[in-house]
Amino acid sequence: MKVKELQAILQKKRVDCALFYCVDFENVEKNIIYFSCYGGMGALVIPKNKKPFLVVPKMEEVKARDSNIKVVVWDKEKRLFAQIKCILRKQGVKIKKIGIDKTAVALTGYTELKKQFKAHFVDIFKECSALRTIKTQEEISIIQRGCKISDEIIGACIERFTKFKTETEVKAFLEYEANKRGCGLAFPTIVASGRNAAKPHHVSQNATLQKGFCVIDFGIRYKNYCTDTTRTIYLGKISESERKLYEFVLGVQEKLLREARAGKKCSELYNNAKRMLGKYAPYFTHGLGHGFGIKIHELPNLTDKSKEALREGMVVTIEPGIYLNNQGIRIEDDILIQKDPLLLTTYPKKLQVIP
Amino acid sequence: MKVKELQAILQKKRVDCALFYCVDFENVEKNIIYFSCYGGMGALVIPKNKKPFLVVPKMEEVKARDSNIKVVVWDKEKRLFAQIKCILRKQGVKIKKIGIDKTAVALTGYTELKKQFKAHFVDIFKECSALRTIKTQEEISIIQRGCKISDEIIGACIERFTKFKTETEVKAFLEYEANKRGCGLAFPTIVASGRNAAKPHHVSQNATLQKGFCVIDFGIRYKNYCTDTTRTIYLGKISESERKLYEFVLGVQEKLLREARAGKKCSELYNNAKRMLGKYAPYFTHGLGHGFGIKIHELPNLTDKSKEALREGMVVTIEPGIYLNNQGIRIEDDILIQKDPLLLTTYPKKLQVIP
Repeated sequence: MKVKELQAILQKKRVDCALFYCVDFENVEKNIIYFSCYGGMGALVIPKNKKPFLVVPKMEEVKARDSNIKVVVWDKEKRLFAQIKCILRKQGVKIKKIGIDKTAVALTGYTELKKQFKAHFVDIFKECSALRTIKTQEEISIIQRGCKISDEIIGACIERFTKFKTETEVKAFLEYEANKRGCGLAFPTIVASGRNAAKPHHVSQNATLQKGFCVIDFGIRYKNYCTDTTRTIYLGKISESERKLYEFVLGVQEKLLREARAGKKCSELYNNAKRMLGKYAPYFTHGLGHGFGIKIHELPNLTDKSKEALREGMVVTIEPGIYLNNQGIRIEDDILIQKDPLLLTTYPKKLQVIP
Repeated sequence: MKVKELQAILQKKRVDCALFYCVDFENVEKNIIYFSCYGGMGALVIPKNKKPFLVVPKMEEVKARDSNIKVVVWDKEKRLFAQIKCILRKQGVKIKKIGIDKTAVALTGYTELKKQFKAHFVDIFKECSALRTIKTQEEISIIQRGCKISDEIIGACIERFTKFKTETEVKAFLEYEANKRGCGLAFPTIVASGRNAAKPHHVSQNATLQKGFCVIDFGIRYKNYCTDTTRTIYLGKISESERKLYEFVLGVQEKLLREARAGKKCSELYNNAKRMLGKYAPYFTHGLGHGFGIKIHELPNLTDKSKEALREGMVVTIEPGIYLNNQGIRIEDDILIQKDPLLLTTYPKKLQVIP
């Protein structure tokens, strides 16, 4: 995505090229995925006014060729950065100023970079992040499709809920359904029942499903892009006050969904959530939402500390929740910010009580 | 694990404390998991002669309390490093020299560290890595148990193989079984049939299972520790020459398993593999194996470039493979290095032909 837009930024900032690299296949560099659609070991180089190229290990060559970017095979006898320097020289790119993402470059890699390139390194994290925050039509289509698949899976899960005995079984089912559809996961699924629902980031163990609210926070990864949905259902016989509590959180969430329009300040939206939650505000212990894309947490953050405003083309989560001593409720949807926000996750939120 | 051993190293190197931190929950810091058993956002500080402590977000407090390390809740109003500085001062720890893992610290984090601590930062990556390479009895027990679970799952998968139609279904089944047992994954499962088996790092798509060899490379994460096994089976009617080829690779693998004794140089073992593979050596395109633990790839590397020798207490994979134009075979086991290596993954390797 947006290689030309990045090149325009490089030209404006007089940066000769952007260089992203990945030497740990357990932690793939997200800018490489974003700009090239290739996710794996190697490097992506985007000169300000020449064609970009990927340098990848022989083993990844076939995978890399699926991207639109020129692929060079990493010469095993050469250091990665030395090979890149050679290629850039041949292209006639002078390399005095190199843009890197300083949140993604480790100190050891930086030492190596400085040794190879006698250049000045500038941080282009903010610029890359800004490009990634506003989604293209292509990204929106992918995320929409991902949300549809995720809706389907959540539906299949809740439909057969009486068959599950443990939190782990629910989690395993959801992740199996994602897998079967060729999708990955955006994050490890949270299934938290009974008292566990009071922990926003509960790690599902082989705990028997408990009576009470059950929070299901699930997201898939479809064509490199995340989705993120939370539904809360109720297991067992519900009391009137519990039903009212759920309706209350749902009412707040739906109001916030309508308020999340282009131009709205993120901090204002968060503060509105706090205000709407009234006496429950102290039990709402996390942010109201976050942008997402290739990473599950991208900008903007919907918190009191955010200085950003919502802008058209952002996709964000809206996820108010309250966590009491022995129970919890969270309801989360994904929306595309426009003048009128577009709801991307549409699985119904009417409380489902599983007897 | 080995907090005391790290403290002894810090004392010897006159480093006042080790500091590991994690601000990205998608990429948890492995040293934090290793030394504290806590895996999440926050920081682990190990002073050279005072008690270590974790600083974690409120949300992660319960999870962190499962570790043996003192837990401090991250004060939302403070910067993480500022809070750590306060705690260390109260403990009376002078902070002139701080040990960090320079492969894990990004440039932005380093800038922040330098701002907070007017200290000298030394790289303790090698020291941490060396500690992690030699497993304790506790780690060995965990990995042994993990390998047993993984054996079981692979068995269940191959037993019902006739029911699968696509590579994705096989992958989904394996991962579901891991999930159901409360285990995570060590890496995304590889299922590669027919021509796909010729790609060592094939990404399973909704491809119909093809006639020929089918490579299944699967590893679970049990109590934070990885396992890593590959089995190759055959789908359809096998020819005599194909059967011979499999037997040949298996013979090589079994010889190498016996040769992997304490004292053996890694490069020598790799070169032996190449020699044993004879005319197939050019089709063996990756390393012979690697250490593993909390990460799936740890030291040592079993390649020609390695300068290390195998030592008692290491756990490594032995995974020769050959990748021809239209087919591939890889057989991989995990072993504990001792005088006589101990096989950890014991699912049978006699070729299974699924009609």
